Amino acid sequence: MWLRNAFMVKNYGYLHSRFMYKCFSAVAFVLEKANIGETIEIKGWVKNLRVQKELVFADVNDGSCAKRLQIVIPKHLKSDSLTYGSSVHITGTLSKSPRGQLELVADKVNVIGKCVVLDGYPFNPRTSHPPEYTRQYLHLRSQTNYISAVLRIRSTVTKLIHEYFDSKGYLNVNTPILTSNDCEGAGEVFKLQPDNAETVKAMMQEGKDNDTVYFGSKTFLTVSGQLHLEAICRGMGDVYTLGPTFRAENSRSRLHLSEFYMLEAELAFCDKLEQLQYAIEDLIKYIFNKTWEKHDLDFKLIDKENKLPLWVDKKFVTISHIEAKSILDKKGLTVVDDINKEQELALVEHCGVPVFVVKWPKCMKSFYMKECLEDDAKVDALDLLTPITGEVVGGSLREDDYEKLKSKLPSERLNWYLELRKFGNIPTGGYGLGLERLLQVLCGVSNIKDTLPFPRWPHNCDM
Amino acid sequence: MWLRNAFMVKNYGYLHSRFMYKCFSAVAFVLEKANIGETIEIKGWVKNLRVQKELVFADVNDGSCAKRLQIVIPKHLKSDSLTYGSSVHITGTLSKSPRGQLELVADKVNVIGKCVVLDGYPFNPRTSHPPEYTRQYLHLRSQTNYISAVLRIRSTVTKLIHEYFDSKGYLNVNTPILTSNDCEGAGEVFKLQPDNAETVKAMMQEGKDNDTVYFGSKTFLTVSGQLHLEAICRGMGDVYTLGPTFRAENSRSRLHLSEFYMLEAELAFCDKLEQLQYAIEDLIKYIFNKTWEKHDLDFKLIDKENKLPLWVDKKFVTISHIEAKSILDKKGLTVVDDINKEQELALVEHCGVPVFVVKWPKCMKSFYMKECLEDDAKVDALDLLTPITGEVVGGSLREDDYEKLKSKLPSERLNWYLELRKFGNIPTGGYGLGLERLLQVLCGVSNIKDTLPFPRWPHNCDM
Repeated sequence: MWLRNAFMVKNYGYLHSRFMYKCFSAVAFVLEKANIGETIEIKGWVKNLRVQKELVFADVNDGSCAKRLQIVIPKHLKSDSLTYGSSVHITGTLSKSPRGQLELVADKVNVIGKCVVLDGYPFNPRTSHPPEYTRQYLHLRSQTNYISAVLRIRSTVTKLIHEYFDSKGYLNVNTPILTSNDCEGAGEVFKLQPDNAETVKAMMQEGKDNDTVYFGSKTFLTVSGQLHLEAICRGMGDVYTLGPTFRAENSRSRLHLSEFYMLEAELAFCDKLEQLQYAIEDLIKYIFNKTWEKHDLDFKLIDKENKLPLWVDKKFVTISHIEAKSILDKKGLTVVDDINKEQELALVEHCGVPVFVVKWPKCMKSFYMKECLEDDAKVDALDLLTPITGEVVGGSLREDDYEKLKSKLPSERLNWYLELRKFGNIPTGGYGLGLERLLQVLCGVSNIKDTLPFPRWPHNCDM
Repeated sequence: MWLRNAFMVKNYGYLHSRFMYKCFSAVAFVLEKANIGETIEIKGWVKNLRVQKELVFADVNDGSCAKRLQIVIPKHLKSDSLTYGSSVHITGTLSKSPRGQLELVADKVNVIGKCVVLDGYPFNPRTSHPPEYTRQYLHLRSQTNYISAVLRIRSTVTKLIHEYFDSKGYLNVNTPILTSNDCEGAGEVFKLQPDNAETVKAMMQEGKDNDTVYFGSKTFLTVSGQLHLEAICRGMGDVYTLGPTFRAENSRSRLHLSEFYMLEAELAFCDKLEQLQYAIEDLIKYIFNKTWEKHDLDFKLIDKENKLPLWVDKKFVTISHIEAKSILDKKGLTVVDDINKEQELALVEHCGVPVFVVKWPKCMKSFYMKECLEDDAKVDALDLLTPITGEVVGGSLREDDYEKLKSKLPSERLNWYLELRKFGNIPTGGYGLGLERLLQVLCGVSNIKDTLPFPRWPHNCDM
């Protein structure tokens, strides 16, 4: 009798225990684990309602899975407030419909919160609203199929990332969001200061201004945790971080956000680019396979045509930057400066699987990247290109020679980073993976703004 | 033969697989799983060195665990660069010392990176440096026993939090860091703007200033993800978030940071404070028990006297705000405004276990908290007080009555939050737990700055 007393059912099991101290069951639990004939209590939202002569059929979802539980309600139990969008508390007996579908035959129906569509509820039943429309209602859009499916998948991907790195012995490190290093060249940054004028006034000292008064130096939102990860890597071995990063670019493309999540890993004693490539490929295939195992129905909610891409069983291709340019030349897509988005996608199509582009010209990449042994005009850097987004991962071996790094250091503020090469130094390599872009590839979502609950981009930060 | 080929040993197992594509083993793996007589390769740092007549003994740690592996090195293999602090690559045969201790008898010793203490390395062998000292060397301090132990524990606690909520069916939600809501009253905030003057100029419009040009409205760093969590909770059920939050206070106490991690959970269909209390107590006991199972040696590295507190097996005490004041009165610690830190710790000592203080005067708490049914001058809020830090969790039931909330709403900017009560509304409750404070309690660390890798506080954001 798992519904009676919250404190007695502690170990009942997974999806039920979610609700153990609340004395009702998750829809996912009912659909997977409950038995015909059992008395069941659920709470959720009415997603569809069909009124017949003597019976009312309500489809209820509570967010715990993609599916809805069909509720059979005798007409006399239907109040006026039982409508599409209302929240309900239902008690009944689990049964099988004549067609063999699980359904709950209600004997108690309580409407918790009404939903009067005419009062301005933006979503209609049996309607698939386009993403541009739902994006206007960020506070309500997790009530739609599309976004709820994406958010369930995002939650699972996050969990899989932590599981994967833990199983490989990596340490999870929270690199700082606030930094006085502007991570030279990685993009435009936001600076910050206290909002309260009183605080600024009270802390003001000679030689300081509003930008520097609080921390003593100008402070920015991080664009990457890499440099800090390298510090911990040199004390503790393999490390990773998964957290928000920021760009103050005036870009409104379907691939850019002002705030996005980046997975960054740094591998200790790593001295070959192939080691990094192996690590990246293994991780991505793990995420794709495991997520599809659990969320096939969510993927179908996003797009009926969705399927696990064939390339998850194939080896990724590796080509040098020179080879990439030559392939694109032959296609009439001559590279002028950097390889652009159209060219990235053409390379992926050409190869039929995700592509590592390696051995980049030194002048195109960051100061901390290691020169190739066989050609010091090139660096041991990689970009991983995939369908839909093009670049989804960037990585490199790090310059571990003290003198070489010193000669390339863009600022004295980074002397701490240089000093990491001085005491018990080791070779390391690492990469950064854009979580939202990976979700675009995984879910087949064309606009990055639909891969996270509250997207921020220029002119859009309303909540 | 797990060391020969990286790609053939994919499924060898946990701590070895960390290094599978690198052809060497983690110290933790060697100490737990390897067999006497096996040929072993490790990479790590020399933490101690004892030179005898014919042999050199080196203790090597690689960050994978608290322990060190003793290496026995024949004198002719010792180069001058093999010193305390150097990074090494050792090959040898696993053996047992006459005392029964595992040791690696080296036949190849390669120093990867030197460490010349006289060049300015701040740490000395066999020395326990005080936290205030190591805090001056944030980039190197993960090489010390104390901080490496804390960071291993922190990584495990993070993992346990994700595991716990996943097992209960909560959705992991990334609430935004950037927000135009300043979360009225929760503390002083940082505001932000693009650093690049060109970007500001290019985006400038009439009626805007530097603070509003990028997003269209003044934008802050979040002080809490609660309001956003409530939005997703009303679409998808139980949710949680674990991420950075910010305070622009001019506080340099041992309990405050400008950037810190907060775990926030919101429970759907929650209408009793006891449900929240049960959830919080269960989570904290889970974290304490599981972390101690795995990290007993790390806890001892931090402080030899560390032990799992007796209260993890006891029920937490619940008292009302009025009872708390009366207890403190009798102790001569009369409460004037809010209960202060000294008084919080006195209450914990009085009760002998962590204490929930409930039923707070409405005027002392936030606008979104639900009035008590039996007394509308009080709200259904809780603080959880523990030893060392005092308050470590704050939570409440949320006002779910549209009209009542409307009358208390501090700003029109929060109309979206009010509207959550309009369509399929449900009762919810939730809490926020300060991760660093929990780590202080768990590890017995008196200063919060030593619970995370890169602490930020006024005048301190140097990297």
